[in-house]
Amino acid sequence: MQLGLVGLGKMGYNMRERLRADGHEVVGYDRDQQVADASSITAMVAELTAPRTVWVMVPHGEPTSSTVRELAGLLDAGDLVIEGGNSRYTDDRDNAALLAESGISYVDVGVSGGVWGAENGYGLMAGGETADVQRAMPIFDTLRPAGERAKGFVHAGPVGAGHYAKMVHNGIEYGLMQAYAEGFELLAASDLVTDVAGTIKAWSHGTVVRSWLLDLLVRAMEQDPELEQLQGYVTDSGEGRWTVEESINHAVPTPAITAALFARFASRQDDSPAMKAVAALRNQFGGHAVQSSDGE
Amino acid sequence: MQLGLVGLGKMGYNMRERLRADGHEVVGYDRDQQVADASSITAMVAELTAPRTVWVMVPHGEPTSSTVRELAGLLDAGDLVIEGGNSRYTDDRDNAALLAESGISYVDVGVSGGVWGAENGYGLMAGGETADVQRAMPIFDTLRPAGERAKGFVHAGPVGAGHYAKMVHNGIEYGLMQAYAEGFELLAASDLVTDVAGTIKAWSHGTVVRSWLLDLLVRAMEQDPELEQLQGYVTDSGEGRWTVEESINHAVPTPAITAALFARFASRQDDSPAMKAVAALRNQFGGHAVQSSDGE
Amino acid sequence: MQLGLVGLGKMGYNMRERLRADGHEVVGYDRDQQVADASSITAMVAELTAPRTVWVMVPHGEPTSSTVRELAGLLDAGDLVIEGGNSRYTDDRDNAALLAESGISYVDVGVSGGVWGAENGYGLMAGGETADVQRAMPIFDTLRPAGERAKGFVHAGPVGAGHYAKMVHNGIEYGLMQAYAEGFELLAASDLVTDVAGTIKAWSHGTVVRSWLLDLLVRAMEQDPELEQLQGYVTDSGEGRWTVEESINHAVPTPAITAALFARFASRQDDSPAMKAVAALRNQFGGHAVQSSDGE
Amino acid sequence: MQLGLVGLGKMGYNMRERLRADGHEVVGYDRDQQVADASSITAMVAELTAPRTVWVMVPHGEPTSSTVRELAGLLDAGDLVIEGGNSRYTDDRDNAALLAESGISYVDVGVSGGVWGAENGYGLMAGGETADVQRAMPIFDTLRPAGERAKGFVHAGPVGAGHYAKMVHNGIEYGLMQAYAEGFELLAASDLVTDVAGTIKAWSHGTVVRSWLLDLLVRAMEQDPELEQLQGYVTDSGEGRWTVEESINHAVPTPAITAALFARFASRQDDSPAMKAVAALRNQFGGHAVQSSDGE
Repeated sequence: MQLGLVGLGKMGYNMRERLRADGHEVVGYDRDQQVADASSITAMVAELTAPRTVWVMVPHGEPTSSTVRELAGLLDAGDLVIEGGNSRYTDDRDNAALLAESGISYVDVGVSGGVWGAENGYGLMAGGETADVQRAMPIFDTLRPAGERAKGFVHAGPVGAGHYAKMVHNGIEYGLMQAYAEGFELLAASDLVTDVAGTIKAWSHGTVVRSWLLDLLVRAMEQDPELEQLQGYVTDSGEGRWTVEESINHAVPTPAITAALFARFASRQDDSPAMKAVAALRNQFGGHAVQSSDGE
Repeated sequence: MQLGLVGLGKMGYNMRERLRADGHEVVGYDRDQQVADASSITAMVAELTAPRTVWVMVPHGEPTSSTVRELAGLLDAGDLVIEGGNSRYTDDRDNAALLAESGISYVDVGVSGGVWGAENGYGLMAGGETADVQRAMPIFDTLRPAGERAKGFVHAGPVGAGHYAKMVHNGIEYGLMQAYAEGFELLAASDLVTDVAGTIKAWSHGTVVRSWLLDLLVRAMEQDPELEQLQGYVTDSGEGRWTVEESINHAVPTPAITAALFARFASRQDDSPAMKAVAALRNQFGGHAVQSSDGE
Repeated sequence: MQLGLVGLGKMGYNMRERLRADGHEVVGYDRDQQVADASSITAMVAELTAPRTVWVMVPHGEPTSSTVRELAGLLDAGDLVIEGGNSRYTDDRDNAALLAESGISYVDVGVSGGVWGAENGYGLMAGGETADVQRAMPIFDTLRPAGERAKGFVHAGPVGAGHYAKMVHNGIEYGLMQAYAEGFELLAASDLVTDVAGTIKAWSHGTVVRSWLLDLLVRAMEQDPELEQLQGYVTDSGEGRWTVEESINHAVPTPAITAALFARFASRQDDSPAMKAVAALRNQFGGHAVQSSDGE
Repeated sequence: MQLGLVGLGKMGYNMRERLRADGHEVVGYDRDQQVADASSITAMVAELTAPRTVWVMVPHGEPTSSTVRELAGLLDAGDLVIEGGNSRYTDDRDNAALLAESGISYVDVGVSGGVWGAENGYGLMAGGETADVQRAMPIFDTLRPAGERAKGFVHAGPVGAGHYAKMVHNGIEYGLMQAYAEGFELLAASDLVTDVAGTIKAWSHGTVVRSWLLDLLVRAMEQDPELEQLQGYVTDSGEGRWTVEESINHAVPTPAITAALFARFASRQDDSPAMKAVAALRNQFGGHAVQSSDGE
């Protein structure tokens, strides 16, 4: 089917490739004219036949909001906007309400798979009205991995549910990565296991911990067996924070996911103010700093 | 090759099947004579041709120790004992030292895969002398998953390293399960995601969180979509505790794995003594219990 | 000085007593006419001489907001509203902005001390303009504990800073209570320490862990040495959640405070959905439930 | 009464002062002859009148063990050894058993209070036979804070119970310090609270979080308001680790205390191997490192 696609970055660019390879007609727009098919969003919309479907794939927050606002002014009743970025689910409600004023439908889709999605297909989680989701199914069927639809796509619920599911997915991802990372550090700290990279590689098949993330860790360690070329500095892009905030809203204990988030925060600190306070306290009750580990 | 196998429970029984199917000669012993090939360990040893190889696959702790002691009295110099249970790595040192007094070699092997190993092969982590590990390689090659050896087997280091690697593997496993579990609970708590089981199933392909454990969760939810038939009561069998203890010994922070362990502890409590103390404190400073949430 | 006081619950009632005992003139209003001095907020305002000072001490959220809105319509330019409840600091900005439209000043005050404040004085943390804080200082000096002002009162910063400081105070309080509670549970679980209540009481003087909260725990255990009469069910009233949310906003790791919050969440669950998922997973890979602790 | 005292470091030296000031006769030994009263342990014992009481106050582990062994050879049946250092409770059993062979009694005492104990008295937790504990009560009554005995001393149980109680005390201490430290860091991260040191000082009286540790934090911040002169590097001396290990042995969840321990571990790492692994994973699935926060 025909699709307008706003945002041709690492994700959008690959998605256009995958869609075209499967016979869809994609009119892509990006600020980078070297990759864009249309010179502006207005021009892109003009190339589409009503009822139009436009996929938005730009960074979440203001870039997505302003794109939706612009589309609200350009599209017509009966058109459909699909928000495929990493928006917070609460933003979806605002987007949908704005577009609904013009009779434009809205579906939010959480997209997982990173740079590997181009080849493997993307895991998709959609939120919205059933009719709207059905309408875009040819697109979803191409983007998702081949095989059984239910193993790579879900219509998770109403508007916002797609990004909610993706948020939780990413929260889990934080926890999974932290678990592997802790295990790696412990193996590396042991003087008994002399082949750490080989041990992790041996977990690739047959074990309970085998996974795609493990395969990626094996891949990373094949290039750098002791991970010496990397700094233990890890940023976070929102979904992990939102997951913990949602867990607080619902009074759901999420200690492992939260531990993963806090470990990232700590990884970015040159020094820990909290640990300064602990050091100060130990100094106070234990005497001089150099003796502070004696008294208590 | 020829192998004596002590312990024909859920794991040992399946391993015998897999070994025989690949042409090995297995003489199995178990207290359950219905599944045993030999009537005693002595009889089993008598059926083996020196230099013998005996695989021990009984519960860790005293059952394993007493089996190793018995084998020490029955085997000869040049024989080999493989400990494939879930022993703590420190026990391996004792086992190896005892057997070395009689010139018997020792290899410890961590075995992962559960009931699925019969079909998929088992992930194997071995510790011991290189010559001893090489000697048992035909057995390992049959038990491990088909394909590249390094993706299902590792010689992780000297005696103890196999079980150390398995211990860390299980610690990671605790963390992975906890991460999925927290995500599941949050999805279930949300009223936005209306298809929780479908969402988790949709993560099976293409997503970053896809894994064998996820596949098992999908499988469990196909039988019981809301997991209503299960109690949230989870035991632990040692490796998780040992992992945290080792992380303390090496001053390695393992907050996610530890969170998983503590969540299991809490799952087995009818009431939390700690929370009684918190309730008592709030009652003390806030006034009467029924008003305790007011003052502070 | 003269003060209008809206809200004569457990906190407000005691504060009126303490203020009057020190010679202030308090006109109190409460929906409960049995404790009120004025029949309505309007009547209360009418009894005050301009420039008026009105202290709001009602539950946070809508009760506080509606009270502030009503005061905005009744007070005059030059009057001062003090918000002493447990409002979130973000609400203070809204309150201050609304009142500023009518030229009314606003100070937020975090008040700690619970039911004991009547006797001991209350710890106070104020936010607002310096002139406004100074104007209410006679009130603060009476409410705070006797002695050095700086050891029971702080002008923490601009509007919102008082409640921000109180929020962090309460977050710390969560962590402190959790630490004592965990220690209590461990002592109680040990069969070595035969006098748990006596041990905790012995910490009252001389030790590093002595505190007012410890004194309260001793007091609770004098009435119920094993805390048998209490359920380990603990509610939470907002500040703990906000503290964790703020720590996320500022990328500050707060694992101990968060652990305390999650322990409260868990204390209110009959069964843990997350632990159902872990049990389901173990069942899947380990075989039948009754044998699930064997394979892995 | 008369007391031999082995170890005149920061703790032992002050204790001798406090004991002498209250009229006890103390014969102290230390490797540092400048502070010692006797030239050797043998000489010290020779100066005591049977039945003798000797207090051991040297670092835990080998220094304590070798001192106890030496005393076992010098003392007579009917004498009493008091172990006042920070021994692990399991060591007490070994010590008591060794001394019992010679008919020598043994009491273990956890001592809290740090350098402040000289002036305030020390919190004491004793383990042993009632008769042995009673025999040393004049010493305990002098060392503990003045006032009610039960508020500074406890006979917690049999041999080992004193150090067990002290271990838990220190575990709690870890948690308390972590809670204050997290609150400090959050206050410092906020741009709303402009007087962080003043806010913490204001918590000194009237608030729920007031404590001796808070007083020490106030004291530290009076010298260095932003704790700029300290590094956030915190060692640990055993009791925190043992507390977590005991909590694992008893299946008691101790997330806040464990968080405090792990924060100390992390404070001593230049870079986190675990976070290298997380960074490696994000790099793998998200594309080039510089873009790694985009894809997921």
